Amino acid sequence: MSTGVWLIGARGSVAVTSMIGALATRAGIAEPTGCVLESPALRHHALPGLGDLTFGGHDVCVLTLAKKAAALAEAGIVPAAVVRAVEDELAAIEADVLPLPEGGTQADTALAIAADLDAFRERHSLDRVVVINVSTTEPAPPPHPAHHDLDVLRDALACPEPVLPASSLAAYAAFLAGCPYVDFTPSTGARLPALAALARERGLPYGGHDGKTGETLVKSVLAPMFAQRHLKVRSWSGVNLLGGGDGANLAHPDANAAKARSKQRVLAETLGYTPQGDTRIDYLEELGDFKTAWDLVTFEGFLGTSMRMEFTWHGCDSALAAPLILDLARLTSAAHRAGRVGELGELAFFFKDPLGEVPHALADQWRELLAFAASVAQPDASR
Amino acid sequence: MSTGVWLIGARGSVAVTSMIGALATRAGIAEPTGCVLESPALRHHALPGLGDLTFGGHDVCVLTLAKKAAALAEAGIVPAAVVRAVEDELAAIEADVLPLPEGGTQADTALAIAADLDAFRERHSLDRVVVINVSTTEPAPPPHPAHHDLDVLRDALACPEPVLPASSLAAYAAFLAGCPYVDFTPSTGARLPALAALARERGLPYGGHDGKTGETLVKSVLAPMFAQRHLKVRSWSGVNLLGGGDGANLAHPDANAAKARSKQRVLAETLGYTPQGDTRIDYLEELGDFKTAWDLVTFEGFLGTSMRMEFTWHGCDSALAAPLILDLARLTSAAHRAGRVGELGELAFFFKDPLGEVPHALADQWRELLAFAASVAQPDASR
Amino acid sequence: MSTGVWLIGARGSVAVTSMIGALATRAGIAEPTGCVLESPALRHHALPGLGDLTFGGHDVCVLTLAKKAAALAEAGIVPAAVVRAVEDELAAIEADVLPLPEGGTQADTALAIAADLDAFRERHSLDRVVVINVSTTEPAPPPHPAHHDLDVLRDALACPEPVLPASSLAAYAAFLAGCPYVDFTPSTGARLPALAALARERGLPYGGHDGKTGETLVKSVLAPMFAQRHLKVRSWSGVNLLGGGDGANLAHPDANAAKARSKQRVLAETLGYTPQGDTRIDYLEELGDFKTAWDLVTFEGFLGTSMRMEFTWHGCDSALAAPLILDLARLTSAAHRAGRVGELGELAFFFKDPLGEVPHALADQWRELLAFAASVAQPDASR
Amino acid sequence: MSTGVWLIGARGSVAVTSMIGALATRAGIAEPTGCVLESPALRHHALPGLGDLTFGGHDVCVLTLAKKAAALAEAGIVPAAVVRAVEDELAAIEADVLPLPEGGTQADTALAIAADLDAFRERHSLDRVVVINVSTTEPAPPPHPAHHDLDVLRDALACPEPVLPASSLAAYAAFLAGCPYVDFTPSTGARLPALAALARERGLPYGGHDGKTGETLVKSVLAPMFAQRHLKVRSWSGVNLLGGGDGANLAHPDANAAKARSKQRVLAETLGYTPQGDTRIDYLEELGDFKTAWDLVTFEGFLGTSMRMEFTWHGCDSALAAPLILDLARLTSAAHRAGRVGELGELAFFFKDPLGEVPHALADQWRELLAFAASVAQPDASR
Repeated sequence: MSTGVWLIGARGSVAVTSMIGALATRAGIAEPTGCVLESPALRHHALPGLGDLTFGGHDVCVLTLAKKAAALAEAGIVPAAVVRAVEDELAAIEADVLPLPEGGTQADTALAIAADLDAFRERHSLDRVVVINVSTTEPAPPPHPAHHDLDVLRDALACPEPVLPASSLAAYAAFLAGCPYVDFTPSTGARLPALAALARERGLPYGGHDGKTGETLVKSVLAPMFAQRHLKVRSWSGVNLLGGGDGANLAHPDANAAKARSKQRVLAETLGYTPQGDTRIDYLEELGDFKTAWDLVTFEGFLGTSMRMEFTWHGCDSALAAPLILDLARLTSAAHRAGRVGELGELAFFFKDPLGEVPHALADQWRELLAFAASVAQPDASR
Repeated sequence: MSTGVWLIGARGSVAVTSMIGALATRAGIAEPTGCVLESPALRHHALPGLGDLTFGGHDVCVLTLAKKAAALAEAGIVPAAVVRAVEDELAAIEADVLPLPEGGTQADTALAIAADLDAFRERHSLDRVVVINVSTTEPAPPPHPAHHDLDVLRDALACPEPVLPASSLAAYAAFLAGCPYVDFTPSTGARLPALAALARERGLPYGGHDGKTGETLVKSVLAPMFAQRHLKVRSWSGVNLLGGGDGANLAHPDANAAKARSKQRVLAETLGYTPQGDTRIDYLEELGDFKTAWDLVTFEGFLGTSMRMEFTWHGCDSALAAPLILDLARLTSAAHRAGRVGELGELAFFFKDPLGEVPHALADQWRELLAFAASVAQPDASR
Repeated sequence: MSTGVWLIGARGSVAVTSMIGALATRAGIAEPTGCVLESPALRHHALPGLGDLTFGGHDVCVLTLAKKAAALAEAGIVPAAVVRAVEDELAAIEADVLPLPEGGTQADTALAIAADLDAFRERHSLDRVVVINVSTTEPAPPPHPAHHDLDVLRDALACPEPVLPASSLAAYAAFLAGCPYVDFTPSTGARLPALAALARERGLPYGGHDGKTGETLVKSVLAPMFAQRHLKVRSWSGVNLLGGGDGANLAHPDANAAKARSKQRVLAETLGYTPQGDTRIDYLEELGDFKTAWDLVTFEGFLGTSMRMEFTWHGCDSALAAPLILDLARLTSAAHRAGRVGELGELAFFFKDPLGEVPHALADQWRELLAFAASVAQPDASR
Repeated sequence: MSTGVWLIGARGSVAVTSMIGALATRAGIAEPTGCVLESPALRHHALPGLGDLTFGGHDVCVLTLAKKAAALAEAGIVPAAVVRAVEDELAAIEADVLPLPEGGTQADTALAIAADLDAFRERHSLDRVVVINVSTTEPAPPPHPAHHDLDVLRDALACPEPVLPASSLAAYAAFLAGCPYVDFTPSTGARLPALAALARERGLPYGGHDGKTGETLVKSVLAPMFAQRHLKVRSWSGVNLLGGGDGANLAHPDANAAKARSKQRVLAETLGYTPQGDTRIDYLEELGDFKTAWDLVTFEGFLGTSMRMEFTWHGCDSALAAPLILDLARLTSAAHRAGRVGELGELAFFFKDPLGEVPHALADQWRELLAFAASVAQPDASR
C-alpha cells in the first residue's frame, strides 16, 4: 500500500534523518533501530512497510537535502557512509520538497498547499498521503471565534487577516486534500473544534501532539512505578538543555511555557496529584542536536521516610524522533485505509500531550498501541 | 479474617519497621504510604486488613523490639513520635518473638519450629499464619539429592548432617504446620523440588524471591521502555552501595554473585538479549539502612547514534520493604483462604527473582497483581 | 579578646545554627566541623576563640530563639540533644536580640541601630562588636547620587525618603558605632563608595559578599582544574533547587538574576573566558533548609574531542553557612584589632562575590587566607 | 633544542594520538588544547617546543601507525581531516617504531634497547631522547633482592631468569643509553632502588607514575576543598567503567588492586584520614576509548549534618593523556638539560601516584609545576 509522507519542515534535522533512515533501512544497510513497528511485538502486522513510503514536503528553508544530510553526518547524527550510500535516492526526493506557499489570503494559501498535496499523490500514484508537522514550535495563537465553527472559519480564511497559525492552516489544507494529519510538535495543528469538524466531514483521522522522545518518555514509566508502589512523590523538578534550532525556539518564554506544561501533565495524570516542582527548558547551543535532561524526584515511603532519585538523559533528538515519524506515517495510513475518522487517541504512546481521554502511563499506551496496530492491519494481506 | 505474620528475622530492621508501621497505621497516626494494597487501584478489595494482622517470629538476635525501634528512630528511619505512640503494642509482640530452635537433627528443629507456629496460631485464635523470611541472605547451598525428592528429604533430615539451609528448613517447618511461606530474600527457601512437593501435598501456596525495592524496581520499568521503543541497549552497568547488616553480608563474594545475577535477570527477560555490563554490590557502612545505586545505560538509536542515561536511587531499604511485607502477608493469606496451592507467580510485582514463568516488566506484573487480588478477595464480604 | 557577634537576621536558620553550634562546641559536646579556623592548618593561630564570642542581633521576625531551635531540630538540621543541652545559654541570648529599629528618617534609624550596638558592647564589656548580615537577599537598589559621596549621603539620610537599602543602612549604622561589618548575603551592604569612605574615616574593616557554601564552592575548584589542564570548557550550566525562606526569596526574578550573575563570575575569572550556559535558581519548598544543585560541564580536549562532567551537590545551607559566620566574626575581629581598614579582600575564600581584585580559584584564596590569619593573629598571646 | 620522544607502546592509542596532535598543532591545523605547557600561565617559558619533538618507539604490536590513526578517526577520537592532513609525516615516523628486542638474557635485551635509542639519537642528531612508557599496566612483580642493589642487579640480568618486569627493563636500558625515563602507567618502571642508583650514577632524571586524567584529577581538587572547609568526609566511593585495551587489562584483579590503591591515595594524603569506601574499576567494552567514572562522597557539616555530593566524569582517555605526554617530554628534556638528577617530584601535577614526598592537592602541585618550569627553562634563549 503506497503511502506518501508529506513533511511540514521537510528540510529540518528530524525530517531528513527520517528520509535517510528509511532509505538506508530498505536498502538493507541499516537496522530499523528505534522504529517501534519493527520491534518483535509489532513487526508481523500487515501495515504499510518502510519500502512503501514516498517522501515529500514543504519548508521555508532552502538548504538542499544533500547539504542537510552532510551537516547531519558532520555532527555525528547519521554515519557519513550511510549518507553516501543513499545520496542518489535522497537527491530524487528533492523535487518533491517545495517552498511553503504564501501570499494572498489564508484560503488561497490553503488551496495552494492542497494542490501541492494532490499533485504529489498523482505524480507518484500514491494510495494516500499523510501530512506530518515536524517544523519548529509555534507560540499558542490568540483565541478567535473562527476556531470553534467550521463555517465561520471558512469565511474568516477568505479575509486578509490571518486567523490560523501555520500548523493549523497546514491541517486545514491537508483535510481539504483528503489527507490525514499528524502533529509531532506542541503547536496547535488540528487541535481546534473547527478543524475537528472538517476532519469528520471528510472522514479523516488525525493525531498528535508533541513527540515523546526523552525526559517525558522516562517520566511516563517512572511516575506509574511510584503510583503502583503507593509511594508519595513530593517533588519532581527537571531541567532540559537543548541545542539546535528547537532549543533556541523553545527558550522563548511563550513556547517554553507551553512545552513545560505539556511535560508535567504526565505526572498529574498518572500520580493522581501534582507534586511540587517545575520543568525548565534552556537553550545550550553547544549541545547541537543532542539534549541533556536532569530530573530530581523526592519521594516519601513508609512512615514518612524521605528518599530521592535522579536521572540524566543524554539523547539525540533526531535519532529518537525520526524513526517515530516513520511509525506514525505507517500507522496513520493504515488507520485511514481502515476507515478510522477523527482523533487517534491510540497513538498516545508517541506523544507528550496526546489527544483524547487516554492513559498517560507508557505501559497502558503500549497495550493500546498493540491493539490499534492489530485493528488497522490488513487481515488477509501480506504487506 | 485474622492472619498471623510470622517473621524469620523478626528483630531486624525490616521486620520491626513493618510492625511499627502496621500498628501506627491502624491507630490512624500514619499513612499507609508504600503499602500497595492501600493504593487507590487496590484498596477496595476484601483482603485481610492491616488491622487483621498479628505479629510474631523467630530470630537468633536478642535485641528487644523496643531497643530496635529506638535505634530505628535514632537513625531517622521511623519518627520517634510514632515509636512512642506504639510502644505498648510493640512490647506486647515481644512475647511472640522466640529464639530460633536449635540442637538435634534438622527434623527435630523443624518440629520445634512447627510447634512454635501452632502455638502462635492457637494463642491468638488465628485463621491462618503466613511465614515470611526477612533474615539475612544465605550463600547458595551445595546441591544434595534430598533437595529433589520429598521422601529422600524426610529421611535425610533425620540424620545428623544438615541438608537444608536455614531458609529451606523454615519453609519445610512452615509447610508441616500448614502455613504458607514467602521468601523476601534471595535465599533458597521453598525453591527446591522436594519442598514444592510438600507444599502441594499440604495444599499450601508460597511466594518469593528477593524483594524488589530499588535499582531492580527501576530497571523493571526502564528496560521495557527501551524495548517498546525498539532502542538497542548496548550496556547496563550498576553499582549498589549498601550499609546495614544486609550490606555487610552481601559484600561477601558468594552472596554478592547470587544477588547480582538476580538483579541483571530483568534485562534479559524484558529486552530479549543481554547487554554488556555488570551490577556490583559494595558495602558502605556509613549509609546505614539507606542504599545508593547508580546505573549507567548506553543505548543506540536510529542509524546507530550513541546515547546514554544515568540514574541514582537513594532509598531506605526498610521504608521500602516493610510495607511490602504487610502486602505479602495479606495477599498470601487471602490466596490460602481461596485455596491456591503452589507457587504464586502473580506476586512477581514484589520480587527481583520471581517464581514461575512470569513477566518481568513491572507494568505486566502490575496487571497480574490486580487480577490476582481480585481473584483471591472475598467476593461477598466487607473486609 | 571578647568579641560581640551582632547578626542582622538573628532569628533565621543560619544565625540560630551558628549560636547553637558555638555554644555546643565550647561546651565540648560538638565538634567544630565546618569551622575553617579549627582546621589543622589554622587552629594554632592566636585569634579570638569560639569561647570569646557573645551573640546578639536584630530581626524583624519575633519567633523566639528557643522555638527556632526546636524547628531546626525537627527538620534534622541540629540534633535535638544538642538543642536541649544549650537551651539555657540560648535563652540567655534572647535578651540581646532586638526588633529592628524603624520609624523616622533613615538617619534616625541608623542612630537607633548604633545605640543598640553601643549598648550591647557596654552591657557585655566587649572589646569589639562585628556586625554580620545574614538576613534575606534584597533586590539591587535603584542608583542614587548619595551612594557616591559621604556628605551627600549624610544629608539625604535626614530626608523623609529612604536612600539606602536595609543592608546598607545596617552597614552605615555599624560604622557609626565603630563596628566592622560583614555581608554574608548578595545584598548591597557596605558596597557603596560613600560607605567605603565612612569605613576609612572611622578606621574600620569590612567584608563580603554572598557566602560560598555549595555549587559555587565546587566551581571554584573545578574551574581552575580545567584551566590548569588547558582544557576548553564549552558550556557550564547549573540549576539550584532551594527550599527555605531564602529559596522563596531568590525565586523572585530580580534577586535570582543578581545571585545567578554572582554564581557565574567565578568561571570568567578563573577560565579567562565565559563558557556558554546559565545558572538557574528555583524554589522547591519540599527541600526545606537543604539545596540540591546539578551542574553540567561540557569540555573539549586534544584535537577537539568532546567530553563532559556532571555533579550533584546536596547540602544543608545552615550547616554549611553557620560555622563560616563564626570564622568571619573571629577573623574580622582580629583584623580590627590589628588595625586593618577598608575592604578585606583576603576573606575571598568565604564568598561567591568577593570584594576587591582578588583570586577566584579556591586554592589561591586559601593561601591568602592562611597569610591573612597569620598577619592578624596576636603574635605573642595565647588566645 | 631537539628532543626525541621514545614511546614504549608506540602503536597504542595514547602514543599515536600524541603524535598526530603534535604534528597537527605544529602545522597550525589544531589547537594545543590539553597541553599544559601551552596554557597562558606556562607558554612563555623557554622549554623545548612542540616543533622540537621527534617521535620513535618500541611496540610488540605490529599495526601500522596509519592504520591505528584510521581506527582512532573511526572511533571519533581524532578528526578524520586531521589524520589526512598529517598522514605523510606520520608515515615518516613509522621507520622509527621498532619491534621490542627479545631473546637472550635481560642484559642482552637491555643492550639491544639501548642500541635502538642510541641509533635513534644519532639518526636524527637529537640533543637528547626522553623515554616514556605508555604501554599497558603490568601486575606488580614478585620481590627480588636484585631490585635493591645495582651490582646485584647487573649480575642477575646476565642470568637466564628474568628479574625485572618489562617497564623496569626499559628504564634500565634508557639509563644505560643516557636517556631520562618517565612512566605514565602504574607499572614499576624506575621505581626500584637499584634503578634509582643507576639514574644517579648516570646523572639522569626520571618521573612517574600513572597519568592523572579523570576521576583522580577531580579528587585532587575536591578533597582539598573538603579539607580546607574543615568538612568531614565520611565516605568516598567510586566506580570506573573503562573500555579499550586498558580497561580489559585493568579488569584483571591484580592490576585493578594496584590501580585502585593508587586512586584512593589522594584522599588520605589531602584529608589526613581515610574515609570509608572503595574505588572499583570495571571493563565495559562498549565505551571504547572513553571512560565513565561515578563517585559518591558523603560528608558531615556543622553539628553532624549529613550531606552528599556525586559526580560523573565522561572522558576520552587518549584525548586527555596524549597532550600530557608532550608536556612530560618537553619538561623532562629541559630538566635533563638543566642538570636535574633523580626523581622529578615536581611533575606530581601529572600523576596519580607521584614519586617522592610531594603534595597531593592539585593546586599545590600546580604551584610546584610553575616553579619547576621556570627553573628548568633556558633563561636567555628563545625556544
